[in-house]
Amino acid sequence: MYPVSRLAAVQEATAKGGLDALLLTPGPDLRYVSGYDAKPLERLTCLVVPAAGEPFMMVPRLELPAAEASPASRLGLEFVAWDETDDPYALAAARLGDVAKVGLADRMWAMSSLRFRDVLPGAEQVLAGSVLRELRMRKSPAEVAALREAGEAIDAVHRQVPELLRAGRTEREVARDIAEAILASGHATVDFVIVASGPNGASPHHDVSDRVIRPGEPVVVDIGGQLHNGYCSDSTRTYSVGEPPADFAAYYEVLRQAQEAACAAVRPGVSCESVDAAARDLIAAAGYGEHFVHRTGHGIGIETHEEPYIVAGNGEPLEPGHAFSVEPGIYLAGRHGARIEDIVVCTESGGERLNNTSRELVIV
Amino acid sequence: MYPVSRLAAVQEATAKGGLDALLLTPGPDLRYVSGYDAKPLERLTCLVVPAAGEPFMMVPRLELPAAEASPASRLGLEFVAWDETDDPYALAAARLGDVAKVGLADRMWAMSSLRFRDVLPGAEQVLAGSVLRELRMRKSPAEVAALREAGEAIDAVHRQVPELLRAGRTEREVARDIAEAILASGHATVDFVIVASGPNGASPHHDVSDRVIRPGEPVVVDIGGQLHNGYCSDSTRTYSVGEPPADFAAYYEVLRQAQEAACAAVRPGVSCESVDAAARDLIAAAGYGEHFVHRTGHGIGIETHEEPYIVAGNGEPLEPGHAFSVEPGIYLAGRHGARIEDIVVCTESGGERLNNTSRELVIV
Repeated sequence: MYPVSRLAAVQEATAKGGLDALLLTPGPDLRYVSGYDAKPLERLTCLVVPAAGEPFMMVPRLELPAAEASPASRLGLEFVAWDETDDPYALAAARLGDVAKVGLADRMWAMSSLRFRDVLPGAEQVLAGSVLRELRMRKSPAEVAALREAGEAIDAVHRQVPELLRAGRTEREVARDIAEAILASGHATVDFVIVASGPNGASPHHDVSDRVIRPGEPVVVDIGGQLHNGYCSDSTRTYSVGEPPADFAAYYEVLRQAQEAACAAVRPGVSCESVDAAARDLIAAAGYGEHFVHRTGHGIGIETHEEPYIVAGNGEPLEPGHAFSVEPGIYLAGRHGARIEDIVVCTESGGERLNNTSRELVIV
Repeated sequence: MYPVSRLAAVQEATAKGGLDALLLTPGPDLRYVSGYDAKPLERLTCLVVPAAGEPFMMVPRLELPAAEASPASRLGLEFVAWDETDDPYALAAARLGDVAKVGLADRMWAMSSLRFRDVLPGAEQVLAGSVLRELRMRKSPAEVAALREAGEAIDAVHRQVPELLRAGRTEREVARDIAEAILASGHATVDFVIVASGPNGASPHHDVSDRVIRPGEPVVVDIGGQLHNGYCSDSTRTYSVGEPPADFAAYYEVLRQAQEAACAAVRPGVSCESVDAAARDLIAAAGYGEHFVHRTGHGIGIETHEEPYIVAGNGEPLEPGHAFSVEPGIYLAGRHGARIEDIVVCTESGGERLNNTSRELVIV
């Protein structure tokens, strides 16, 4: 999925960003740059990308075969295997030499960042994201194709949800079936399965519970995973098990229009916060402003949540290749809630939705 | 699983350790102290434990219902909900006041640790582990019981492996069946399933592949997960699909004796490195020293890998309640490998093994 030329682009951006090196421990930054999906463990694995000079990767000796079997082996960089009684931080610092400013993988653990602080006492630490964010945000056509594939896979799962959602079943039972369907649809992992029935639907990050779904209840189903190609899916639909309460039906229609308006607002040059406002203004005008308690969306790629964030205060303009969720919600504490979520890619001419199942309320 | 009294013990240890506060973002440190298994996401969730004064937890407003539904709600601490356009780091710093030294969750992401550095510019950052390690290493009887339950659950899976391992199947097919058995045995999650056949057995952290298992091949099976009680399992057995090569059989017996010797060496007051040496000396004496490329073990609890590490250079003495793996291995690159792993708890009188399936080579 990742082009070999990416490492060169990253080095160039590192130099341009005024950083002397990036230090990339396991996680999305490392995977983006090298293709190596290393396990995040206490032994240091770290790709060191100097702004000038040869990149190298610190690898625990017992993981050397795994690193060599990974796409990182095609990058022509040196693997520096360290033994159990070595100090890999000191070894990396010695190879790196004098540096004044280094970028840490955004998800680097404190157990590593504080060790790097100690062995590179002269180096200011900033986030590698300051260099990588521009590259990671602007998806290439191949990356958009990978996200499109992820969108189609999760849409196929949502099409099966009406068969699985039934009064008398628990959220957990439904979620287990959905998780199986996510894997069967071509995902490599199940990252989250939210099945939030009745009052649980009012908790945006509800997971699942043993609550039995009852007739007449709305159910928020927010699901996603990672494809073998490394890219993530994320789509929410709200269903109703039988006829929903009248108050729910009223705000669901407001929500549907708000989601539509935010998707329609997507085009190059428009700010992230104005996409948020497109949904929020409609919801607020209908009197539900205080019940839309979260931002409208988040970027998506090899992470489910990444930049750009579609949130008030983010004045950054959208560019072709930016991919993000548009997922307004309305939540009535103690009663029920609703959310509709599509992944949208900004193209030269507007927004392309990567999720395309019906956004009308599906009564099952 | 976690006692309410733990928070008081953590505050006391924080003061004693000379820290003004712990900052615990999602991960094992937070779960250990509060019981809250929060999702690690980009929005800040952080339990702030001052050495003196009232602990509080920063929670994104949309996750407030999840936090309130968690065991953390029984601790009597304040949840400080922050909104999408707030700066939760600045809010936390303002509530915390002047601090000179703070302990960061060992797995805190750089995206959080660097923000805390900026909003608490006068505070030296160290690892929360410096305070929590003593508490986390010394398992209470309830924690040992939870680990014992985990050991029994994974033993039940190993007892099924002989039915699943068969020449002609791929590693991935076998691993999929094992993963199902791990969940069926009472685990909440499948954390890893290594099925390493033939030459793949020589890569200690091999995962799985589409390699077809052939007759006469040794297969290393290293599996584990987390129980609903929060504690982890981890056990390795090496099987042989039919009669193994003679050279393999010879070193397998060396390995079995080395693992036995290391387990027998466990008792209070003995150093971690001497347990490592008990296995390593035997393997080296038999001429396989260079083929035992990793430490003998790692601590285990709510993380699969935690302190104490059973490794050369670690002179710390074992204490009753320390729980760790004893897992020497011998790896012949390009040919095959073997590893035998049990979790062992140090008791007043010696070591108690929590894994008890046969350590003889199982020919399937």
